[in-house]
Amino acid sequence: MIPTITAFEQSPDEGQGLARDMRVRWALEEVGQPYEVRLVSFKELKQPAHLALHPFGQIPTYQEGDLALFETGSIIFHIAQRHPGLLPKNENARARAITWMFAALSTMEPPIIEREQIPYAEGDRPWHAERVPLMDDRVRVRLDQLSNRLGEADWLDGAFSAGDLMMVMVLRRLEGTGLVEEYPNLSAYVARGQARPAYQRAFDAQLAVFTAKSGSQTSRL
Amino acid sequence: MIPTITAFEQSPDEGQGLARDMRVRWALEEVGQPYEVRLVSFKELKQPAHLALHPFGQIPTYQEGDLALFETGSIIFHIAQRHPGLLPKNENARARAITWMFAALSTMEPPIIEREQIPYAEGDRPWHAERVPLMDDRVRVRLDQLSNRLGEADWLDGAFSAGDLMMVMVLRRLEGTGLVEEYPNLSAYVARGQARPAYQRAFDAQLAVFTAKSGSQTSRL
Repeated sequence: MIPTITAFEQSPDEGQGLARDMRVRWALEEVGQPYEVRLVSFKELKQPAHLALHPFGQIPTYQEGDLALFETGSIIFHIAQRHPGLLPKNENARARAITWMFAALSTMEPPIIEREQIPYAEGDRPWHAERVPLMDDRVRVRLDQLSNRLGEADWLDGAFSAGDLMMVMVLRRLEGTGLVEEYPNLSAYVARGQARPAYQRAFDAQLAVFTAKSGSQTSRL
Repeated sequence: MIPTITAFEQSPDEGQGLARDMRVRWALEEVGQPYEVRLVSFKELKQPAHLALHPFGQIPTYQEGDLALFETGSIIFHIAQRHPGLLPKNENARARAITWMFAALSTMEPPIIEREQIPYAEGDRPWHAERVPLMDDRVRVRLDQLSNRLGEADWLDGAFSAGDLMMVMVLRRLEGTGLVEEYPNLSAYVARGQARPAYQRAFDAQLAVFTAKSGSQTSRL
């Protein structure tokens, strides 16, 4: 059964692959699972039909027969359990890879999102410019710790896993801030993730949605 | 094999059960798994021996033979996979319960922590008092959505699960703010979690650590 995921009809990132459907597309490409995409407008996100699928009114969702899931962590874990390629078979290694999924979402991402939100949530407040360097420092605390743990390894715990997929995507949210670039091993780690063929197929697929919807491309048709 | 978890030697919450070892204790009590606790000082948290177990220098950790885990989401998932009582057997229901674990940690908790951190991270800045109502409103957006989804149900998806355990603990972090009390169904939901015998055993166990360490209790011995 081919699953259906949702993505933004008009992604605010303009095809940079930072919207969260990219995480799920990448996971599906890693395991070689075809999927369908249903595009959702900003208005539809807040309407009852979508809220029944996703109580927090976001994308992506994942539907497969009777099953409907939200939260990228849960969706990717579901995919990883059903198809080989994202979690090791050894039980202890598997538990450690799952640990890195939670670490990416629960420890690394919150200060990164908090920093990212400043211009949107507080851009009209007099203090917003002063909060950016404060938050940079809080993000650096986590980047320091992650960089120390990764060291010279290619991936966080042996082979590439769903934990690395999630961590690479979380670190990508810092693009343009220069923060990841302060840590050469983390920069190389993100680049290693982006170089994977499955990442590239997923990236191209989400970019194609933006390209098809954007006026400049339409006028070329 | 009896697992060992770590907890604060001197918990900053003074035994209120808000430190994250409470989540793991509760999960272990729900499944009837005995455990040992190793207390860690603030100084030890940042030293190499502890960082080898937990790269972000926090509690709790979970050790069981050769396996060492961190992140409460990962630890509780590990416990729930090995013992009945925290995740349904039906595959789809199980995937939905796991979704709620991620929703608690990745969608609900970050704005709650951001609000909680204001006095610690920015208490010396002139804007800190003004940020509290801003963050209250962002937390309310999530509480509204969660309250709408829960409705009149006892638990988020049928029977009590690890998803409810995590959500109740995340909502407890708002104690003293009055925010959960704006939603009677969420207040009742948290109280329902706290009334579980396993919750109470876990709460008493973490309180006993604080009581044993606190001077006033010592002087009564």
